[in-house]
Amino acid sequence: MPHPTKKEDFPVSNVRHFLEPGPVVLVSSHWRKQTNIMTLGWHMVMAFSPSLIGCVIDTGNHSHALVHNSGECVINIPPASLVDAVVGIGNCSGREVDKFDAFGLSPGESEKIDAPRIEECYASFECRLHDDAMIERYNLFIFEVVKAHVAPSADEQTSLHYRGMGEFMLSGNAIDRQALFKSSMLV
Amino acid sequence: MPHPTKKEDFPVSNVRHFLEPGPVVLVSSHWRKQTNIMTLGWHMVMAFSPSLIGCVIDTGNHSHALVHNSGECVINIPPASLVDAVVGIGNCSGREVDKFDAFGLSPGESEKIDAPRIEECYASFECRLHDDAMIERYNLFIFEVVKAHVAPSADEQTSLHYRGMGEFMLSGNAIDRQALFKSSMLV
Repeated sequence: MPHPTKKEDFPVSNVRHFLEPGPVVLVSSHWRKQTNIMTLGWHMVMAFSPSLIGCVIDTGNHSHALVHNSGECVINIPPASLVDAVVGIGNCSGREVDKFDAFGLSPGESEKIDAPRIEECYASFECRLHDDAMIERYNLFIFEVVKAHVAPSADEQTSLHYRGMGEFMLSGNAIDRQALFKSSMLV
Repeated sequence: MPHPTKKEDFPVSNVRHFLEPGPVVLVSSHWRKQTNIMTLGWHMVMAFSPSLIGCVIDTGNHSHALVHNSGECVINIPPASLVDAVVGIGNCSGREVDKFDAFGLSPGESEKIDAPRIEECYASFECRLHDDAMIERYNLFIFEVVKAHVAPSADEQTSLHYRGMGEFMLSGNAIDRQALFKSSMLV
């Protein structure tokens, strides 16, 4: 099992660096006495500033109510070494299982919200619900990232990308094309 | 330069297999006499059936008006070998450049819509605008995939995943965890 990873402050306007490539994330939430984690692949960067992220969280997930009622969550990015926990978390319900306990994960205190971070993940983005207008129609939550924590080793981590049917793609090598960009496009 | 890739019909409800891992896509559009291509990284699967995809297309992009006015586009997935075209397309405007011509790409006829496919891409998803309610506030287009075309070699292709600042991550190896899934979760 991976160990907790020490993380540092990271600019919220730049979380796209980690989310835009499309990794599977673990969403942690808390409401009243309930805490939960869900596995989520349906997310999208929507704006840099405010830092907005769209996520589709189906009503079938126990987390839907916790996130909706609390108006908060943490989007955590797990390293590939957590793949079996990522699958297990997606295959059971927080109605029956304490997922932090069942999967040996460590809740960490968030700075700006009550939902816990997951210490074994290499990036954790504290989010507040920014717009609920599309929740009823599409289960689409639009969050604002209000605080970002990233491990110094994050760029060397391998991320998981889900393809359906139990198959994941692992992140591969990086290539730099900065020299081909107009400077105004380099964000 | 890559050659045009022959593609076959693919179930629209399963385009998540290619989009959920988060590749950079090329969005092709057509309205009246204008045709354009844009590079896009801000997209998300929103539903299987109907097959819904959310995309953020900023008003600064020439394609915004073409897609909005026509209510159509094609989401194409380029192989990594097209990376310089992907960058170039994102660094010039369709107001000034015929991008198919400038980047040596071949427009192919779509079946259900007027916007052209990009033949050099290994997957092309013909989309109709499904919901425009969030375009004004967030530039969020919710599309329905009405026809999908995928090359038989698609699973062996390397996709590009954008991190900002001119850096791309390449897709890596696949890992199979199907055996860990409850059968009801295998979609």
